[in-house]
Order: sequence, then structure tokens, then C-alpha cells
Amino acid sequence: MSDALNLVLFSGTADKLNATATLAAGAAAMERPVNILLQYWALDAFRVERLEASHGLAWDATTEGTSRPVHGTKAIPWLETFRMAKELGEVSILACSGSLDILGIDITTLDPLVDSSGGIAVFLLAAEGGQIVFI
Amino acid sequence: MSDALNLVLFSGTADKLNATATLAAGAAAMERPVNILLQYWALDAFRVERLEASHGLAWDATTEGTSRPVHGTKAIPWLETFRMAKELGEVSILACSGSLDILGIDITTLDPLVDSSGGIAVFLLAAEGGQIVFI
Amino acid sequence: MSDALNLVLFSGTADKLNATATLAAGAAAMERPVNILLQYWALDAFRVERLEASHGLAWDATTEGTSRPVHGTKAIPWLETFRMAKELGEVSILACSGSLDILGIDITTLDPLVDSSGGIAVFLLAAEGGQIVFI
Repeated sequence: MSDALNLVLFSGTADKLNATATLAAGAAAMERPVNILLQYWALDAFRVERLEASHGLAWDATTEGTSRPVHGTKAIPWLETFRMAKELGEVSILACSGSLDILGIDITTLDPLVDSSGGIAVFLLAAEGGQIVFI
Repeated sequence: MSDALNLVLFSGTADKLNATATLAAGAAAMERPVNILLQYWALDAFRVERLEASHGLAWDATTEGTSRPVHGTKAIPWLETFRMAKELGEVSILACSGSLDILGIDITTLDPLVDSSGGIAVFLLAAEGGQIVFI
Repeated sequence: MSDALNLVLFSGTADKLNATATLAAGAAAMERPVNILLQYWALDAFRVERLEASHGLAWDATTEGTSRPVHGTKAIPWLETFRMAKELGEVSILACSGSLDILGIDITTLDPLVDSSGGIAVFLLAAEGGQIVFI
């Protein structure tokens, strides 16, 4: 049984990016290794030219009558929380090579918080025996 | 190895709320402890004043040609299924304190099925060695 | 500790279907058993009359400025990847009986890649001690 927390981050909205970063920071603070695999819209969110843009909220927020983030969507500090998670412990961020191909993204255009690229097999091997969460 | 089932419930649409409640009820019926952490739109869905409103369906249901729930969306019995899960076994429902802050929600405005509030660290500790699912 | 990878596939967009199929294929190639439970919009996506339709992209792709799949959405090879996963190893695909009822779908209208139908309890029993991922 491994105590690593393994996160497949597929989503690119600010609320889900922040939920992921908070889980990563919490696990890192407990001295657990964290492996993050960025796919599709999460990968897209880490493009340097997109970092300052608003990343919106999940579809669920469009249902009539839902609450709004009190400080606004752009103020949800997802990138800072990822940075903090990496400072707190052993957090690796991998760009999924299959998603890079499908979206035509070059890894050199991503924020330096992303460590390297790799495929599903690399991630599944690292995750073996630990918890896997898909977000 | 813990046999607890640990659910991070982020989503607030009726179909995902019901999918979560059904997983919780199934695990409770097998005498497994269940820990649920409500975040963002799930938290919002448990506000007493929102319980009777329609909570809609996932974005995926908007693709042309998808099926419709035969008894309508409002008839999806997510709240009743959560209630049944709690009657069947040891199911704890925690409101994520970070999400409460971001959305400006006061825990006293939530349905009494919610037991208390707490942070990610509390949840991750309870979940250690068990399965974690993010919905 | 079981080495099975257990996937609850709720989503029906092409990107998430493909992400799931890729995880399944990766695990199968590592000789791990894979159990997939199709719910709601994933179930709907496997209807024979819908297979050729475009299944769209996740809501996250609608945020302004996101990348587009370089070969188009319809070219994302999710069905072929599921087929390959089943050829590579021991991959079982179960239709969730509760979701079949809610959407009024008859199992005979689904692609033959779907092995049979069953409830949450069957899935949770098979998944016991392994990793569970909800997509």
C-alpha cells in the first residue's frame, strides 16, 4: 500500500483547478507524495498565455439560483495553491503526452510548475497501490 | 487498508448528486463506513432554500440526441437517497470549510443531513488507506 | 489489496470517454483487471444509434481561448480505444441498471462492447480493495 495521492486533472475551470490544488497541498502538508497528471483542459489552463485569463466555473454553477464566489471567479487562487503545494512537499506535475498531441500543445508553452511530460503508463505505474482521483 | 469509501462531492446537478448518494447507500448497505466532503456546488445544493429547486443535469446531457430521464429531472430522488444511506449505515457528511468561505455560505443554512464542517486535512486523514472518489 | 482498476464512467463527452478508454487500455496492458460501470451519459453514448454522432467536448472547452482538438472532436477515437482495451486484457463493461431505468434505455440497444447490466452493489464488490475512479 502506497501513501501517494495520484490526481488525474482533466478539468480547466477555476473551481476544479483550485479543488485539486487544495487536495494536493493538504496531502503534501501530511508528507504524502503527490503525482498529478494534466490532461485536456487542465493542460490548456497551464499554458503561460492563458494563466491570467479567467478560467470560469463548472457547468453546475450555471443552474439558476446557485451561489457566486464572494471575491469573484478570477480571485480563486488556483495557481498560487499549486505553487504552495510544490513548496510544501513532493508534488510532481506531469503533462499527459496524449493530450498534448490531441490539443496540439507544445510543452514549452506551459508554466514551469509542470515538471515534464509522460504517458498514462508512467502515471499508472507511479500510482500503483495508492489512491487515484480524477477531477 | 481501510474499507471506508470516501467521496469528495463537488458537483451540484441532480444526476451526479444521485450517483453519489447511490454509491454511498450501496457501501453503507455493505457495512462500510462512508465519508462525504461537500464542496462548491454540492454544498450549494444542500442549502435548505435550494432543496426543492430543480438542480438540472450534467453538461453532457446538452449534447444533441441524448436520452432524457423518464420521470423528469426533478424526480431524481437524490436527497431521499442520501437520507436512506444515512439510515443504512455509518455515513458522515462534512461541509468543506474552504468552499463555505469561497461561496459565502453559512453552515446553519444547510440541510441537517450535513453533520459538520471541516477542512481537507480532516477529510484526507479519515480517508487514509481507503478509496477516494471525486464527483 | 486488489490490483483491479475500477472506473465509474458517468460522462458522455468524447474527451472524457477517451480519457477513460486510455486509462483502461493502459491498465489492461499492465495485466491489471479493469471493471467499468457505465452510468447516465456514458450509457447513452454506447447506444448503437448514437455511436456515429458527435459526442462533443466537456463544458470546460467552452471557456474563451481554450485549445481545440487538432483533428476535430469527432476524430477522438474513444470507441476504438475501448475496443483495443478489451483486446489487450481483462476489461469488463457493465451497464448500471439504475441508470438504464432512469433514462429508459434497453440494454439490447447498446454496443456489444457492453458485457451485461448490474447494480452498484455488484460493482462495489468487484472493486473492493482496488482503486476506484469516477469520470
